[in-house]
Amino acid sequence: MITSADNQQLKSVRSLMERASARRKEKLFVAEGVRMFLESPPDLVHRIYASDDFMKKSAHADRIRALPHVIVSDPVFKKISDTHTPQGVLMVMKMPEYSEAFFEKRYGDGLFLIANRIQDPGNIGTMIRTAEAAGAAGVIMDKECADIFNPKVIRSTMGSVYRVPFLITDELPVFVDRMKAGGVKVVAGDLKGQLFYEAPDIPGGRAVIIGNEGSGISDELLEKADIKLKIPMEGKVSSLNAAVSAALFMYQMKRRI
Amino acid sequence: MITSADNQQLKSVRSLMERASARRKEKLFVAEGVRMFLESPPDLVHRIYASDDFMKKSAHADRIRALPHVIVSDPVFKKISDTHTPQGVLMVMKMPEYSEAFFEKRYGDGLFLIANRIQDPGNIGTMIRTAEAAGAAGVIMDKECADIFNPKVIRSTMGSVYRVPFLITDELPVFVDRMKAGGVKVVAGDLKGQLFYEAPDIPGGRAVIIGNEGSGISDELLEKADIKLKIPMEGKVSSLNAAVSAALFMYQMKRRI
Repeated sequence: MITSADNQQLKSVRSLMERASARRKEKLFVAEGVRMFLESPPDLVHRIYASDDFMKKSAHADRIRALPHVIVSDPVFKKISDTHTPQGVLMVMKMPEYSEAFFEKRYGDGLFLIANRIQDPGNIGTMIRTAEAAGAAGVIMDKECADIFNPKVIRSTMGSVYRVPFLITDELPVFVDRMKAGGVKVVAGDLKGQLFYEAPDIPGGRAVIIGNEGSGISDELLEKADIKLKIPMEGKVSSLNAAVSAALFMYQMKRRI
Repeated sequence: MITSADNQQLKSVRSLMERASARRKEKLFVAEGVRMFLESPPDLVHRIYASDDFMKKSAHADRIRALPHVIVSDPVFKKISDTHTPQGVLMVMKMPEYSEAFFEKRYGDGLFLIANRIQDPGNIGTMIRTAEAAGAAGVIMDKECADIFNPKVIRSTMGSVYRVPFLITDELPVFVDRMKAGGVKVVAGDLKGQLFYEAPDIPGGRAVIIGNEGSGISDELLEKADIKLKIPMEGKVSSLNAAVSAALFMYQMKRRI
């Protein structure tokens, strides 16, 4: 049992929680809490950290013992936890990885979400959770988006991060070109769109781009869209929340009636 | 010019920012930043606090001078501000108030959002912003919802808090009974709904109840709904974000095609 927060292993856990650079280097991230433990695929578990108390009382202790795990004292667990009321279990997880080829196979009929410079971690998390619910085939993000492996994003995805295929690219316009060459119709969610979002029926492979909370979609990306669509807005609202826009578009594009 | 953060006036501003009880007692709240200044109706301004530097440089200084205002030194403004990079202006505002009679006039054809125990301040703010965009006639909240006058909610409404009629009630089930007696059809957004949310066309006055992030709509309220509708969900998602659900329902219920 680890009884000191100065332990080198625990310091590296904190570093994975706090720094995107550490996560990228190690290809690991941290998910915390019982709910996330139940959602976490065993084959992606790198190592579980559980408090002494949790291992004595939890109905899940046996499942934890069957996986790589370390027990830490209760006061030390409180120190490494990222939450106000720690539940006593956190997982260091391997990052799920998907190839472009995996995405290409779904270009024929899949719905994709393209996130362009979404800055709010809560928005990215909610977008991934909604993408799963809407039945999206995958989410493509650029490097300017909030880090999907940030503990706050991981929590707000409610486990969807393990189930929705995603790709992070540093050349999003080039990626969009390749999607279009693969037959995917690209919609821009744009305040200045020609038509309302309910108007066109877009069969087959299709993607919707949702842009930055303040400045929208980059000009370079906007030019690549096959069609620009807007959501009707009454009152004096200048824009919708990015995760709300993504939800309205994705549900519209999967609509059955 | 106020040059000390110990000033009694500034202490009461901090108290309004930090404590819901102080806001309720004074019927005042705080909105911060240039964007919110431009959205704030002059007749609701109680007093504006602007930094010395802001008054020297801002194009809005003349508009501020025409309203009740106090200038504070730059270091003191930084101390009272609720943001990481203060813009130099914050407004103490009177709470907008709407009567039940005001709501009743819109029961014939209005769309209403009913928020039941929504705990996340960001969700409440996004729901109010989306309600304005969807053209809702009003938002009804119970006292268990996150405080709409919390600075975080105020920011996330992007000014909609000034334009969307709302009521906060400590007897939501009774209020819903009166809405129903007034002819409003009440929809519950419920995971166990009989039909999908796109199925029924609901003309006239109508309301949708969105429940708590974890536990959904209270049993008492759920029983009062005329119809329970669910949003289709694929994958293993157990629920959508509350603000996303509210958006999908409201846009569906205002749908034109």
